[in-house]
This record gives sequence, structure tokens and C-alpha cells, in this order.
Amino acid sequence: MDIATLLGIIVAFGLVIFAIGSGISSFIDPPSLMIVVGGTVGVLLVGYPLKNALGVIGVALKTFMYKVDTGADVIAKLVELAQTVRKDGILALESEVKNIDNAFMAKGLQMAIDGQEPNVIEEILYMEMDKIAERHSRGADMFTSLGTYAPSMGMIGTLVGLVLMLQNMSDPSSIGPSMSIALLTTFYGALIANILCLPMAGKLKTRSKEELLIHEIILVGIQSLVVGENPRIMEQKLLGYLPPKERKSSFE
Amino acid sequence: MDIATLLGIIVAFGLVIFAIGSGISSFIDPPSLMIVVGGTVGVLLVGYPLKNALGVIGVALKTFMYKVDTGADVIAKLVELAQTVRKDGILALESEVKNIDNAFMAKGLQMAIDGQEPNVIEEILYMEMDKIAERHSRGADMFTSLGTYAPSMGMIGTLVGLVLMLQNMSDPSSIGPSMSIALLTTFYGALIANILCLPMAGKLKTRSKEELLIHEIILVGIQSLVVGENPRIMEQKLLGYLPPKERKSSFE
Amino acid sequence: MDIATLLGIIVAFGLVIFAIGSGISSFIDPPSLMIVVGGTVGVLLVGYPLKNALGVIGVALKTFMYKVDTGADVIAKLVELAQTVRKDGILALESEVKNIDNAFMAKGLQMAIDGQEPNVIEEILYMEMDKIAERHSRGADMFTSLGTYAPSMGMIGTLVGLVLMLQNMSDPSSIGPSMSIALLTTFYGALIANILCLPMAGKLKTRSKEELLIHEIILVGIQSLVVGENPRIMEQKLLGYLPPKERKSSFE
Amino acid sequence: MDIATLLGIIVAFGLVIFAIGSGISSFIDPPSLMIVVGGTVGVLLVGYPLKNALGVIGVALKTFMYKVDTGADVIAKLVELAQTVRKDGILALESEVKNIDNAFMAKGLQMAIDGQEPNVIEEILYMEMDKIAERHSRGADMFTSLGTYAPSMGMIGTLVGLVLMLQNMSDPSSIGPSMSIALLTTFYGALIANILCLPMAGKLKTRSKEELLIHEIILVGIQSLVVGENPRIMEQKLLGYLPPKERKSSFE
Amino acid sequence: MDIATLLGIIVAFGLVIFAIGSGISSFIDPPSLMIVVGGTVGVLLVGYPLKNALGVIGVALKTFMYKVDTGADVIAKLVELAQTVRKDGILALESEVKNIDNAFMAKGLQMAIDGQEPNVIEEILYMEMDKIAERHSRGADMFTSLGTYAPSMGMIGTLVGLVLMLQNMSDPSSIGPSMSIALLTTFYGALIANILCLPMAGKLKTRSKEELLIHEIILVGIQSLVVGENPRIMEQKLLGYLPPKERKSSFE
Repeated sequence: MDIATLLGIIVAFGLVIFAIGSGISSFIDPPSLMIVVGGTVGVLLVGYPLKNALGVIGVALKTFMYKVDTGADVIAKLVELAQTVRKDGILALESEVKNIDNAFMAKGLQMAIDGQEPNVIEEILYMEMDKIAERHSRGADMFTSLGTYAPSMGMIGTLVGLVLMLQNMSDPSSIGPSMSIALLTTFYGALIANILCLPMAGKLKTRSKEELLIHEIILVGIQSLVVGENPRIMEQKLLGYLPPKERKSSFE
Repeated sequence: MDIATLLGIIVAFGLVIFAIGSGISSFIDPPSLMIVVGGTVGVLLVGYPLKNALGVIGVALKTFMYKVDTGADVIAKLVELAQTVRKDGILALESEVKNIDNAFMAKGLQMAIDGQEPNVIEEILYMEMDKIAERHSRGADMFTSLGTYAPSMGMIGTLVGLVLMLQNMSDPSSIGPSMSIALLTTFYGALIANILCLPMAGKLKTRSKEELLIHEIILVGIQSLVVGENPRIMEQKLLGYLPPKERKSSFE
Repeated sequence: MDIATLLGIIVAFGLVIFAIGSGISSFIDPPSLMIVVGGTVGVLLVGYPLKNALGVIGVALKTFMYKVDTGADVIAKLVELAQTVRKDGILALESEVKNIDNAFMAKGLQMAIDGQEPNVIEEILYMEMDKIAERHSRGADMFTSLGTYAPSMGMIGTLVGLVLMLQNMSDPSSIGPSMSIALLTTFYGALIANILCLPMAGKLKTRSKEELLIHEIILVGIQSLVVGENPRIMEQKLLGYLPPKERKSSFE
Repeated sequence: MDIATLLGIIVAFGLVIFAIGSGISSFIDPPSLMIVVGGTVGVLLVGYPLKNALGVIGVALKTFMYKVDTGADVIAKLVELAQTVRKDGILALESEVKNIDNAFMAKGLQMAIDGQEPNVIEEILYMEMDKIAERHSRGADMFTSLGTYAPSMGMIGTLVGLVLMLQNMSDPSSIGPSMSIALLTTFYGALIANILCLPMAGKLKTRSKEELLIHEIILVGIQSLVVGENPRIMEQKLLGYLPPKERKSSFE
Repeated sequence: MDIATLLGIIVAFGLVIFAIGSGISSFIDPPSLMIVVGGTVGVLLVGYPLKNALGVIGVALKTFMYKVDTGADVIAKLVELAQTVRKDGILALESEVKNIDNAFMAKGLQMAIDGQEPNVIEEILYMEMDKIAERHSRGADMFTSLGTYAPSMGMIGTLVGLVLMLQNMSDPSSIGPSMSIALLTTFYGALIANILCLPMAGKLKTRSKEELLIHEIILVGIQSLVVGENPRIMEQKLLGYLPPKERKSSFE
């Protein structure tokens, strides 16, 4: 559970509501909200295939809950497996592989157990890693797009409001409120883009990089394991992927 | 048929029209529409060779209807072909190749049947894939360009309107309506760019990536087929290109 | 002759003039025009070496007239040459080479006739292709730069006009016209950038890509020719560079 | 200690305060400050994992104090070590390695002393260098993000202020001050982004490049040292990494 | 001496001053100038290490005077040297090398005379070329940064002016002049960025590319010279780096 996403949204929206204060009722205008939110959804359908567009909620939820193994745990596991291989041979992993949660690691180990060539294992895992990264970056891209669609719809709404207002300027006292309503769509677009969509795209990118790093560690670890490299050398290599203070050797 | 494109356009435009409400007549100004649409077409002719510019309608239609084979079907087909090759030799594909819709796959198989060297087949297919990707990205580029030309023409129209209005401020009551007409070109430019051109460019890019993925699968599949790789290993490799939940083995 | 460039400029400017209508005289302000055009030229001199800046007119003309061989013609020629080589040997090209307009093809063939090593020919042609692409992209870059300089000068002019106007607000009736003159430089900058410079940069880029493709075809064709590849295989390779509907075999 | 960062901030803020002059009190509005600063922090939590977001202060401090070895010192040290190796063999470094501050150099030398293969040392150091660069660029990215979040929150605050003001225009004399308060959030956002976050992101990038250069020098130096290259040739190679006027040979 | 830089600045500033006309005194406001220029310098110190920031004047001067050897001269020299080597051996260059101004060429030749291996020479020169390019692009980057800092400081100054003005709207006749002073910082920022910094960054980039091209020619020439390639073939290769009309053979 990524508490920071929820906390950040609450803080940012809370401060905006606090700034609005008692005038909150004049900031809620359902038609304006509908043009921005509905229009953004419409544009999303134009811009992405239906399947991806429908998955946007699922992608959004990933920014709230998203479990990534830590690099340290993955390295410790790989070193442990390497020691098992050293002692009892590669087939001894057969019983271990069922208990491994990480699907990527399980797939690599299964291929090793099945006796596939090291370069075939590398090729398949590398390609899979590449495709996972592509799928993740598509989710982040979609949120970046939403972050440009929403302010655009906001601007279109404001232009509609301005034109309507300018057509009817006979009553000067209505100009202020009309203008204020016209500005609301810009306001909604800015909130949706800058507090939700763009930072969520950022988090998806960071998450994707973290997961990619874990996959790189697993890929290098399994290569090392398949050729029967010394577990100490393997660990030394893999720890280099972590920031210095997260490095912890299993041999101390 | 990509229903999402049509649906999205209807939703987004529908909401804008709904927001305008009964004032719709004041939003229709043929000269303003002509300067934005006509000007954008003019700029398109300056920016792209005539042949490409004339093809823009055809490219636009691609965002409405565009059939891409699914990865799963292509893999199943390739595995089936690989089994045929294993049983009856590569020449047994001769009768199959006529029934294959996908031109890229047919070309690759025909070269394999003709007994061309694996590396020649790879080189030719790879280059062809590359050129297809280039042609597709040109279509998406053209829509991205249209998405910048339209608001520019809108801004130019608004500047014309503003200058005309400012020259003639003797009648204060005409300022509002003049200004509103000046804003209409900006409004048209924003609609064309943000609801049509830019998201359509996005869809073309996504479509192109999907097709590229299918081509990659076919390329790797044919390489595997030509060297007579085990169909199971080939399938395992190819399924890695798909997201986990779309993977379905033909061997189960 | 690229009629589209001229046509597009006429259409876009024509529509702007049509929108202005009878008020055209108030849109012509020589000092404003001078600050935008002259200033843009000045900034071009700051931003580019004198030699390149002076060549800007020549580059602009390229967007109006620019002859590129079509891919189909180049491939047909290369296949014809390959057949000659097959029949009469490489030296038989000696008499042909004089009739070849394309300087790049002529250079490659001359090296082949001179008996240079295939890898030397490839290296020299590849490098030359690279440098041609660099020179072309410099032309496009220059127009992209002009497309940012012109609106900047327009904005500077408008700021000058605004400051002058604000200093002297005693006569309210002069505010409108003063403001309208201040806006003219922005208007000129927008016209120059959005109707001329930026789309012309786009056309130069497309042209450069087309020429690069032709050079790639020639490079691959000459490589094939030098090693005496079968003309049919050579043609099959080269046709892959063209979109399917432009492919036409010389052997049918 | 990077005195320039502190000095620059003092100069830039000092000049802004000087420009404000005696009206300083009207520029301090705690609620506006809270919406911009607090909102930016909130958005940072949405956009980055909690761990990174909490580290932002630490990253900021790096722009004030950040010690990088100079290239000249590192080269002199490496040449000295190479001479020791030439004279007394690689094991003679054992006593030296403890006195080396630079963790990257110490790690490389330790692996050399441990007798690891040159290509393994290269691979491990190269990967480590890569990961360090990635971690640093993440810090710079975070400040670039802050530099876009802050003005966005400023704009949202200004929109809130404008809407409130427009709703209540009955008292004309209050419009000016209301508008001025509305502008304050934009002002705060601009200060935070343009004087603090964006230039600090720039400094972090430059620092990272400097450190990367030092790491490259160390990597090439250790490679040279492990294969026992002549110290003079090694120095000649390494000095090429420095600008000409910083090159100083140890042999003169 | 790059006369174009100076000429361009004079033209652009001259036209701006001409447009201002007799109202020039109202465009000179020392406090506004100080906030923009001083603030930009302050932000430069935040964004770049002190050493680089202090070198900014030196980098600026490079856009006025910057001598690059022409490609044709460098090629003629290299061909001449190659002929000397052919006749009298590589050691015959010893006496020539002292008269060579270009430090990069001199270094390469000296290594050739010293009998270093061709691949070592290539590696050292290639790396040096790379580092020179990096140092140059840092100078261009710094001017691009200045080109974004200056308008930001201008906008901050304008916001200060606007807030002060809005706080004190009791005297309507002072609004115009106050507003005009507020706009001056934006005006200064636009001048500094668009007439000086950004185009100067452009010129630095072009200069850097020209020098890189010369270095590439020298690198390829020295490689050719070290392996004793035929001077005619060497010349043919090198002339490919130049645009067709600058190619002049030494053998005709």
C-alpha cells in the first residue's frame, strides 16, 4: 500500500479547500465538472484503444497499492538459491521454485531447471523484461496524456463561458459571476492534471524503474546461477545494483 | 472498427454542445470556421508533400477502423505452421501460405519456402518492419502537426479580430460581441486540436506500436521456424511478447 | 516544383486577408513589420554563422522546388545495372555512369568500376550519406529557429507598444488604436512563424527523409551489385523500402 | 561547500526584496504561502515514493555542500599507484587501499588485489557507475518535478483567488487588493520554481556529470593498472579527460 | 572574428530602439534592470558550479571570435602529410609537427611519430574528441539556461510590480505608468533571452558541430596516415565530409 499517494492527494486537495474557505459552494458547478471530466474521458477514448482506456482505473489504483520486492530480499534469495545449486545441483531448485512469488524469477528458474541453454534463458528473460517495461510505460503515458487532455477541456470550457458572457454584457453586475463560472473549468482542469494525473504518471514511472531494476538483478542472478558462478562473486555483482546503505552481505 | 474513436468524439463534442446550450447559434461563425479549417489545410500543404497531405483523410479513417491481428492468434498460427514444418518439411507450407491474410507473414514464409538463407530472410523482414514503422509514424506526425497548426491559425484569427475591434471602439456595446467573435477562432482551433488531431495522433501511435509488436512476433517466429526450432520452445519465446493474461499455450 | 508549398501559402494568407476584409490598411504598419522581420534577421545572424544565415533564402527555395528521384525509378535503374553487370561485368558500367544524374549513385558506381573494396565503398558512401543528412537537418533547424525568433521579436514589439501606450493614457480614445498597433507585431510574428517558417521546416525534414531513403536504396543496391548478387534477390530487398503499392517488379 | 548556491540564492532573493522595498508586508500572506508550499509537498508525495520524497531535503543540501575529487588529483593518484604496481606488484596496493577515500576507487582496487579477472572488474565497476548515475539523476528529476509542481499550485491558488474575487465585485475598491492577493500564489510558485528548484536541478545534473567523469577516469585507470600498462601511456590517456589547462603530468 | 554575431545584435537592438523612438527614457529603469540582470546572475550561481559560472563571459566572447580551421585546409594539410609519409616515412613528420597550429592534429601526429599502435591512437583521439564536445555543449547549455532564467526573473519582477500597483489603486492616473514599469522587467528578460542568450547558445552549438567535424576529419585522416593508405583514397574519403562545392582535390 503506497500511503504517500493517498496522503499527498489529501494534503493538496485539503489545502485548496482550506484556501477556498466558506465560499466552497461557488466552486461546485456540476455542468462545468461534467464538461471537464466527461470531455477528458471522451478524449481518452479517441486517443487510446478501448481496452487500454477501460484499464485506466486499474492503472490508477497501482499508484495506491503496488508491491515491489526490495532489491535486498531478491539478492538474498538468489544467493541462497546459488548455494543450493552449488551443493545439490540445479535440479534441487525444483522444490524451491513453487514457493517463489515473483513470476519473473520463477520463470527464469524453471527454464534453468528444464536445462535450457544459458543464452536462450537470457534472451527470453531479456525480451520479457523489455515487454513488461513497455506495458508499464504505456500506463504512465496514459496518465501523462490525461494530464494534457484535462486542462485542454478546461480551456475549451472557459472559452465557451467567455463567449457566452461576451454576447450578453447588458447587465454589468452579471459579468463577475459569469466570468467566475467560466474560470471554473480551467480550475477543474488544473486540479485534475496537476494534483492527480501528472504526479501519478510520475509515480508510475518510478515504480516501473524500480521493478525494472529488480528484474535486472534477477536476470543477472539467474545467468550467474546457471553458469555456476561462485555465490560470493554473484552477490558482489548484484549488490552493486543497490545504493551503498542498502547493501547487506549474506556472508557476514 | 474502433468504436472508441467515434464514441469519444461524440461524447466530447456532445458535452461541449451541451455546455453551450441554447446559445449555440452564436458559436457558429462560418468565416471564423473557414479561417481555422482552411488555414490549417493551407499550412498542411506548406508543411507536407502534396501526396502525404492528400492522404490525411485516409490516415484519419485508420483511427476509426483498423484491424490488427491479435498476438495470441498470430502465435497460435505460427506454432501450427512450425508443427507442419516439423512433420512434413518446409515445402508443406506452400499450400498454407495462400490462406494467410497477414502480408508480412506471407512474405516471410514465401522466402522460407523459396529456400533463402535465414539471415537474408531476417534482414529483409527486419528492414521491411522498419520501413512500415516509419510510414506509420509519419501519419501520427502529420496529426501532431495539425494539432499545432490549428491553434496557431485560431490565434491568428483572434489577433485579426482583436485588432479590428480595437480600431473601432467608439460604440462600447459592440465590444463584447466583437471580442466574442474574435475568440471563436481560438475556440475552433482548440476543439480541432485537442478533441480531434492530438488524440488521433495518439491512437495512431498506439496502433503502430501494436502492429510493430505483431511484426516482431512474426519475425522471431519465422526465424525459429526456418532453423527448425522445437515448436514448444518457439511458443514459450513468443508468448513472452504478450501480457501474462493473454498467454495461452496450444499444447494444453 | 513543389506546387503544394506555394498553394498552401496562398490559401493560408488568402484566408487571413479575406478575414481582415476591408480593414486591411490598419494591418499594414511598416515600422512594426520592420521590427519583426529585421529583428528576426538580426537574431538569425547572432544564432548562425554568416555563411549559413546567407544561405537561408536558398534553403527556403528548396521547399518550393526540390526534385527527388522516386524510389521506384532508382530501383529499376539499379536492377538494370545489376543485369548489365551480370552479363558484361562491372566494367560495362563505365559507359552508363556518365548518364546518371544522381551524384550519389554515380559516385558509388565509379568506385565500384575503379575496383575499390566493397567495404571501402560502403564506408565512404555511408559517411557521405550521413553528412548529407546532417547538412539537410541544419537547413530545417534554421527554419525551426526562425519560427521561434519571429514570435519573440513580435512579443518584444508588443511590449514596446504596451509600455508606450501605458505611459500616455490621458486620451482614452487613443488607447484602442495604440493597443491595436502594439498587437500588430505579435500578429506579424505569428504569421511568419506559423504559416511560413515552422511548416517549411517540416517540409525540409520530410524532403530530407525522402532523400535519405533514396540514398539508402542506392547504398544497398550498390553493395548488392558489387558482390554480384542475383538481380531478382536485389530487387526483392530494395522493393521492401517502398510502400506496398509503389512496388513494381522489373521481372513481370 | 558550494558557496555559489548559497550566494546565488541570497543575491536573487535579495534583489527581489529590494525591488519590493517598503511594501514587503503586502507580499507576505501565510495562507497563500501554505497553499503553494504545502500543496507542492502534497503533490511530491503523489508523484514520488515516500522514501524518495523524504530524501528531498538531503538532496537539496547536496547543492550546498558536495565534495568531488578533482580529476587532476585522481589521475595523479592512479599514476602513483600504477608505478607502485610496476615496481612491487599488484599486492603492494594492499596497504594503500585503506587510505583511499573514494569508495569507487577503493572497490576497484580491492577487486584487482583479490585477483579478479580484468573483464569482471570492468563489468562490476561499469554497472556500479551506471547505477550511481541513475540514483543521481533521480535527485535532479525530483527537483525538476518540484519546479513544475510549485507554479502549478501557484496557478491553482490564483484561480481560487480570482473566482472568489469575481463572485464578490460589489465593492470596486476591494478588487485591486483581492487581485493582488490572488497573484501572490503565482508569485510564490515562480520564486520557488525559478530561483530554487529548477536551478538546483541544474546544479545536481552538473555535479552528477562531474562525478561520472571522475568515475570514468578511475574505471579506465584501473583497467590500465590491472593489465600493467606503462604509467606514462596511462597518464596520457587519462589526461585527455581533462580540459587542456588542467592537464599536469606527474613525469615533468 | 565572427562579425555576424556583433552585426546581428546591433541590428536587432537598433530596430528595437528605433521602434521605441523618442520615448527611450521611459524604457530605462535601473531597479528593473538590476532585478533582471542581477537576479539572472544569482540564479546562474545556483544552477552552475562557480567555476563554470565565472567562465560565462569567456564563453560569450567565443560567439564573437572563434577561429575554426576550414575543412578544405585541414584535408589539404593531411594529404600533404600523407604524401610526406609515403615518401620519407612517418618520422619525417617530426619536423612538420611543430608548425601545426591545431592542437588536436598535433597530438595525433605526435602519437603516430612515437610509434603508438593505431588502435591506441584512435582510442585516445576519439575519447579526447568526445570530451571536447562535452565541454562545448556545456557552454551552449549554460546560455540556454540563461535564456530561461532571464524571462523568469522578468516575470517575477512584473509580478512584484503588479502586486504593488494593485495594492494602491486609489489614484487611477498612476495605474498606467505603474503597469508600464511592471512590464519593463518582462521586456528586459525577453531582450536578454531572445536577442542574446538563446541565439548565442545556437551559435555555440553550430560552432561546436563545425569543430567536431574538423576533428572527425583529422581523426580519420590520421588513422589513414598511420596505416599508410594511398593519399588519393584518403583524400576521396575525407572530401566526403565536405559539402560538394567545397571539395577540391590536391591532385588536380
